[in-house]
Amino acid sequence: MSVKIALLGFGTVGQGTYRALTLNAGVIKSKTGLELKVTKILEKNPAATESGVAPRKLFTQNYDDILSDNDIQIVVEMMGGVEPASSFMLQALKTGKSVVTPNKDVVAKNFQKLHLAAKNSGALLKYEAAVGGAIPVINSLSGPLIANSITKIQGIVNGTTNYILTKMEEDGLSYEEALKRAQAKGFAEADPTSDVEGIDAANKLTILIAEAWKTYIPPTAFKRVGITGVSKQDLKNAKEKACKIKLIASAEMTKEGIVASVQPQELPMDSPLAGIKNEFNGILISCNMAGDIFLSGKGAGMDPTGSAVAGDIIEIARHLKNGI
Amino acid sequence: MSVKIALLGFGTVGQGTYRALTLNAGVIKSKTGLELKVTKILEKNPAATESGVAPRKLFTQNYDDILSDNDIQIVVEMMGGVEPASSFMLQALKTGKSVVTPNKDVVAKNFQKLHLAAKNSGALLKYEAAVGGAIPVINSLSGPLIANSITKIQGIVNGTTNYILTKMEEDGLSYEEALKRAQAKGFAEADPTSDVEGIDAANKLTILIAEAWKTYIPPTAFKRVGITGVSKQDLKNAKEKACKIKLIASAEMTKEGIVASVQPQELPMDSPLAGIKNEFNGILISCNMAGDIFLSGKGAGMDPTGSAVAGDIIEIARHLKNGI
Repeated sequence: MSVKIALLGFGTVGQGTYRALTLNAGVIKSKTGLELKVTKILEKNPAATESGVAPRKLFTQNYDDILSDNDIQIVVEMMGGVEPASSFMLQALKTGKSVVTPNKDVVAKNFQKLHLAAKNSGALLKYEAAVGGAIPVINSLSGPLIANSITKIQGIVNGTTNYILTKMEEDGLSYEEALKRAQAKGFAEADPTSDVEGIDAANKLTILIAEAWKTYIPPTAFKRVGITGVSKQDLKNAKEKACKIKLIASAEMTKEGIVASVQPQELPMDSPLAGIKNEFNGILISCNMAGDIFLSGKGAGMDPTGSAVAGDIIEIARHLKNGI
Repeated sequence: MSVKIALLGFGTVGQGTYRALTLNAGVIKSKTGLELKVTKILEKNPAATESGVAPRKLFTQNYDDILSDNDIQIVVEMMGGVEPASSFMLQALKTGKSVVTPNKDVVAKNFQKLHLAAKNSGALLKYEAAVGGAIPVINSLSGPLIANSITKIQGIVNGTTNYILTKMEEDGLSYEEALKRAQAKGFAEADPTSDVEGIDAANKLTILIAEAWKTYIPPTAFKRVGITGVSKQDLKNAKEKACKIKLIASAEMTKEGIVASVQPQELPMDSPLAGIKNEFNGILISCNMAGDIFLSGKGAGMDPTGSAVAGDIIEIARHLKNGI
């Protein structure tokens, strides 16, 4: 069965997704029987449209071309930012097109609105890549771990800050020096605010909480401390106690409800999170029956994120195939 | 929506599954809207039927009671062993009932037969708990990671042998002493052959290979070496090289096809698998786009396995709800 797909945005993640769907088309066909065809891409940046990664004829600058194309069943939003990404997703869902996105910002801010639009039209909404990149955390919470009552989630969900903290610890760099190195390596943006102040991690924590407990807590509603105040001395002090400092997104179900925060924490060396280095992510899920489940891997990047987006596309295509 | 379920076998895993479905019924209802009712249990052992864990009236000793009950949509096989478990699963699938099992022995031996029976009747077949207990590895391979070409899988998938190797290394025990301690702790059976000779791990590797590459290689078709020949001296020698010895189930896609084995291997300390201690399991999945994804947690036990079985039941119940 062939399923037609539109991509919104053809930057790093858009190109990674296109690569996953084309480079691995044979693997996908043999494992699932599905043929996934990208038939339209919304993108105006010549660096992307003229890159040669996708044929020129697939590109459009008019979203209505996609919305009005009844053959397109899945819209993949990879534009980044809140608007127009959010409106575009809502429009797609309302017309019955299923939506996949790695955009944690939109999902965290408009979680309920997006899910309601999907529910009303019967379309599907998936965002595995929004938390932990290629790490299958959303799927695990909503699938194999769903019979559990989740007691606690602790995650290193931002690769930029973990890279900076790792370099400060291992190479004795100051925060400023480590940030510069992260920027030079492409692990931090020119304006690193969203990463280093914990805003990105807070968005991801909102999504994890919603998946684990079906409770929506906006990212502005819990304590958030970034890593700009972490000094070389703090890391040395932690080391003397056989600990590492990591930026931890944490949520725990207590008698008083969910207690959540994003902040630097000292972790003992034997915590699996203490072993997560550089740009990698790790998430520890404590369950009332399954015990502690730990997942780790690449939390960002063209190919990891693209393959996770493609995984969601395939999951939806299977549902479409079965006639839901 | 209420879905009716039969359990075959009410030993450790059967009781764990029943606990997950009853203890967490409220959580499951609130997260999925599903009510899952165990209406029949096939078990004759008085220690189980009279345990008080499930009401006496649910038990039957006649499998036909379950097969002929058209209200039962999901049959959960937890009897262990190959027969009659295998025949019972095939009969259930042929009558259109979906099947869940944690039985790696049957799934590894009759993988193709079971899948064919499911395909022919349109019923579903799931076995997340068959590999790695509560670790969501099957679901990750068949879901979020499916857009990847898998290049290699390496796993510690047997808790008994990992416990023994950990105690030999940390406490300087001989193999025989460590085995005795594992037996005293309930981590090894009176006859430990299946675990210590790598037979259990080989069954799990067959299943992992089938999920990753849609290729069936029987557990008897690859190299299998257990841990009975590992000495204290071997562990010391490894330590001097900053390595640990672990029983690794490994499969790699090479130019000559899949190369698979179960055998003790020296792993460098910085491998995430080297950090997996005692009865825990860990699985490292190398993907052509997602990179290395590492999953770890409890690979066995009443509650972890029971909650993974319950996760599969819920997944199938959702499909039934959507009218597949």
